[in-house]
Amino acid sequence: MNNGKSAEEEIRFLLDQVKQGLIDGAHAVKALEISRFNEILHPVINAGGVEGLPKWTGGISGAPGAAVGRVYFSSGALLKARKLALRRGEDTHCILVLPFTLADDVKAIEVAAGVLTAQGGFSAHASVMARQYGKVSLVAPEMNITGKRASLGALVFGEGDTVTLDVPGSGISAVYLGAAEITEPNLAGSALFDFIALAKGFIKNFQIRSNAETPADLERALSFGAEGIGLCRTEHMFFKPHRINTFRELILSDSDAARKNALEKIKVMQRDDFYRIFKIMAGKDVTIRLLDAPLHEFMPRSDTELMGYLDHISRTETLCTRDEIIARIEMLNEFNPMLGRRGCRIAISYPEIYAMQVRAVFEAVQTLRDENIDVRPEIMIPLVMNAAELKTIVFGKRVTGADYTGIADIAPLPFKVGAMIELPAAVLGAASIARYAQFFSFGTNDLTQTTLGLSRDDAAGSMPAYTHYDLLEGNPFMVLDEGVKELISLGVNRGRLTRPDLVCGLCGEQGADPAAIRFCIDSGIDYVSCSPYAVPVAILAAAQIQLEKQ
Amino acid sequence: MNNGKSAEEEIRFLLDQVKQGLIDGAHAVKALEISRFNEILHPVINAGGVEGLPKWTGGISGAPGAAVGRVYFSSGALLKARKLALRRGEDTHCILVLPFTLADDVKAIEVAAGVLTAQGGFSAHASVMARQYGKVSLVAPEMNITGKRASLGALVFGEGDTVTLDVPGSGISAVYLGAAEITEPNLAGSALFDFIALAKGFIKNFQIRSNAETPADLERALSFGAEGIGLCRTEHMFFKPHRINTFRELILSDSDAARKNALEKIKVMQRDDFYRIFKIMAGKDVTIRLLDAPLHEFMPRSDTELMGYLDHISRTETLCTRDEIIARIEMLNEFNPMLGRRGCRIAISYPEIYAMQVRAVFEAVQTLRDENIDVRPEIMIPLVMNAAELKTIVFGKRVTGADYTGIADIAPLPFKVGAMIELPAAVLGAASIARYAQFFSFGTNDLTQTTLGLSRDDAAGSMPAYTHYDLLEGNPFMVLDEGVKELISLGVNRGRLTRPDLVCGLCGEQGADPAAIRFCIDSGIDYVSCSPYAVPVAILAAAQIQLEKQ
Repeated sequence: MNNGKSAEEEIRFLLDQVKQGLIDGAHAVKALEISRFNEILHPVINAGGVEGLPKWTGGISGAPGAAVGRVYFSSGALLKARKLALRRGEDTHCILVLPFTLADDVKAIEVAAGVLTAQGGFSAHASVMARQYGKVSLVAPEMNITGKRASLGALVFGEGDTVTLDVPGSGISAVYLGAAEITEPNLAGSALFDFIALAKGFIKNFQIRSNAETPADLERALSFGAEGIGLCRTEHMFFKPHRINTFRELILSDSDAARKNALEKIKVMQRDDFYRIFKIMAGKDVTIRLLDAPLHEFMPRSDTELMGYLDHISRTETLCTRDEIIARIEMLNEFNPMLGRRGCRIAISYPEIYAMQVRAVFEAVQTLRDENIDVRPEIMIPLVMNAAELKTIVFGKRVTGADYTGIADIAPLPFKVGAMIELPAAVLGAASIARYAQFFSFGTNDLTQTTLGLSRDDAAGSMPAYTHYDLLEGNPFMVLDEGVKELISLGVNRGRLTRPDLVCGLCGEQGADPAAIRFCIDSGIDYVSCSPYAVPVAILAAAQIQLEKQ
Repeated sequence: MNNGKSAEEEIRFLLDQVKQGLIDGAHAVKALEISRFNEILHPVINAGGVEGLPKWTGGISGAPGAAVGRVYFSSGALLKARKLALRRGEDTHCILVLPFTLADDVKAIEVAAGVLTAQGGFSAHASVMARQYGKVSLVAPEMNITGKRASLGALVFGEGDTVTLDVPGSGISAVYLGAAEITEPNLAGSALFDFIALAKGFIKNFQIRSNAETPADLERALSFGAEGIGLCRTEHMFFKPHRINTFRELILSDSDAARKNALEKIKVMQRDDFYRIFKIMAGKDVTIRLLDAPLHEFMPRSDTELMGYLDHISRTETLCTRDEIIARIEMLNEFNPMLGRRGCRIAISYPEIYAMQVRAVFEAVQTLRDENIDVRPEIMIPLVMNAAELKTIVFGKRVTGADYTGIADIAPLPFKVGAMIELPAAVLGAASIARYAQFFSFGTNDLTQTTLGLSRDDAAGSMPAYTHYDLLEGNPFMVLDEGVKELISLGVNRGRLTRPDLVCGLCGEQGADPAAIRFCIDSGIDYVSCSPYAVPVAILAAAQIQLEKQ
């Protein structure tokens, strides 16, 4: 049901029909293709953001949006370059440039920012796949590709050059040599919001929440109809350049006093963050995931970065020696960080970190309650492996020499605590874990990695051959694997054996996939949590699935 | 039942009693403590292997054997040093030196070669734990420890110094400054073999196999009563210095012709290895695990090693350029190698490697059959994730452009193929996987890593805190985790839904643990496979468990 209308036009048309009583709301919700939402939600080029960049205009819109990235002329070259960039902590945005794409190129499209091809049109493989994966696609029949160089009129670019693709939903597309400034879509006055509200009315006993922590993302999630925050990642607040050094102080301090001082500084920052988050989300659930990232993620990665950092800290007094810092950083490195000391394992080794975070949460809660603001925090413990861990983190433990201070020893108010279920062991032990958890949140990214024994960051090495021989139902990081689904169902059922009113949610990349939402509804899962821009799609999918079942 | 007798004396006594008809065989087998076998099976110092090393004699034997390693004066320092050594590919043998040990030191004892303490005796914590983990322990009350230095009479050593502990089963113990040459125990004339034969007679419908590939280990496994080889690791044959460069040629060749040439050279080596293995194991099952290790394990690890290698190959002609070699090696590195391209994923990317290995196996089989030798090979595919993978590897696949050559396209004779079940996804998909597998081998090391989301190589970072707060039933890499056991049972049951006569085995570090053997017998598993020196212990444990059930 494209009919040559833009997505905005079609949504407006459907809403008008409902308003005029020509169709009912359910019909309108069922009639809209989910992919049309994506067309409205794509990013655009800033006004003035391409000033001075060499430009070519024309081509056929394959998938709308704006994308900036380095150019590669084969999927292999792109995947290789991206892997190196990942390893070096460099920018990973790439543009795939090819005469046309084949099934084998999907793995590159999936990780690229955009695709520029010479053959085909809106229905070409590249365009269809780009729309499916939410990527930008432009077909430019005028493009000449020779080896690792391409020309588009006067525009000439080679491998590794940065280009910008600008493919508006309607109007003329453009390619720029260089990086344009990109901004989120301007949705002011869009009928999207009314349509979301219409669709939400058909969702019963199921919620769409969002993964967000910055004020901009929280506001966006709310405007898109999110019922709460299902995943607020507390480490994201510390990866900001002006804050990361405070976190490093915590790890590299040479005395308990210095460590306590660093903890106190971090607590104040976190408390202020939580205050803002809870205020924006007043009246709605906010699930705070305590620190999950391994500590080495906070350390300088490259030698250059390390030298810069050592140079910076030579002016401070509280840290251990330069050699000791280098040794500590080396010690934090792991062979398999995915399976290393992260998630609540950090809390078991360094109980003071979670204690600080819980204090920050409840100090913010107290301030807001004093202001008569309705705050609904939930504390979520990541990477739980067994019930003994969770019990200790929640209720503490008396041990000769050093007690463990639990959340219950700190939180002054009734509070909700839940477990992320993202390891097969946690699924199998779910009945015991549910004794100490009021909710489960299934982390599908990590559960997929452990169930399949497949690292998300390294999968690109194997994927081409698996695609070639058709050995996977789909990319398991986009579409939930059957084994992962079985484990999630088992976890829900075992958890509810112990706690019949256990709330269960799903947060992970796959959360906005309509098939995953169907699985969640069928399995008695209470909510999914996805990125803010995916919330409208998830709402529409959930509404359509529930309408279909009526 | 120690009675001051050495283990050898006790075994001889029990056998005599049986011979004289005073007790029956079952009684003798039940009467012997399993740990007594370990006492006989410990390594000893070579004759003349300590020539010229400064020596101290005396002390109380805590756990017999001989151990060489670098000295550390705290569990933390030892674990740290070992982790660095692991990362750098250096020797990881360490000796823990302390006044006495506490529960928290177990994690260090577990990975140390030996323990030297000043307080206590045979029943001290250090001695008990060392015996439990098969480590050497000596108690030297004369030892003075001051900071990171210790003195034993005239012998003085500091952190990082190499010492040798020599603790014979009977006789005077010694400590040497420096590394002695160590050799396997001399079992000529030991009553152990008769006792193993006696115990084996009580094992019904259950086998003890061994993990082995070198002639010495195969002979040893046979002499210790192994019924077959449950795990013959084909990559171990390539880590030898004089062979690894041939394998590198395969990965770094610049042309198909050069790659084919390298493959052919490797095939000849493997064929000759398999010939020797099958000949030694005539009449017994030999399970050949095809390549499992990720390709980067064959590459130079340190910069020094890389420079040495580049220097070496500059004299050959068939490889790609120096820069391309460095780039290829960098590309092979993975963020999480445990979850990367290894196991049968290598075969899906590079089908020619398994094809070469299968050719090598069956050429060796053919030669031996021509010599009228009874050969019983089984081909085992590691890290199977789903049935589609295994089906392709076994039966091949016709794909436009490039067919996949399966084992069935190569093997000229009826052959047995099985799957290693070491990922939760494989357990969940076991019913489908069993369509293409005549046997399952549960790899408990990897299944533990994926189920718990815990890397074996990195676990030392978390373990101290987990031990301190008592959050694990035991070290999951020594004692099977409950979740892992549930998955194994599920895999056995699902596999036998499809194939009622599916043979199931267990290979992994935990295989020789009596509790694991009990679990295997209770779960209908047909065999365990463990290291040659663990075979006698496993046989005695299996016999005792089955006698107990009668």
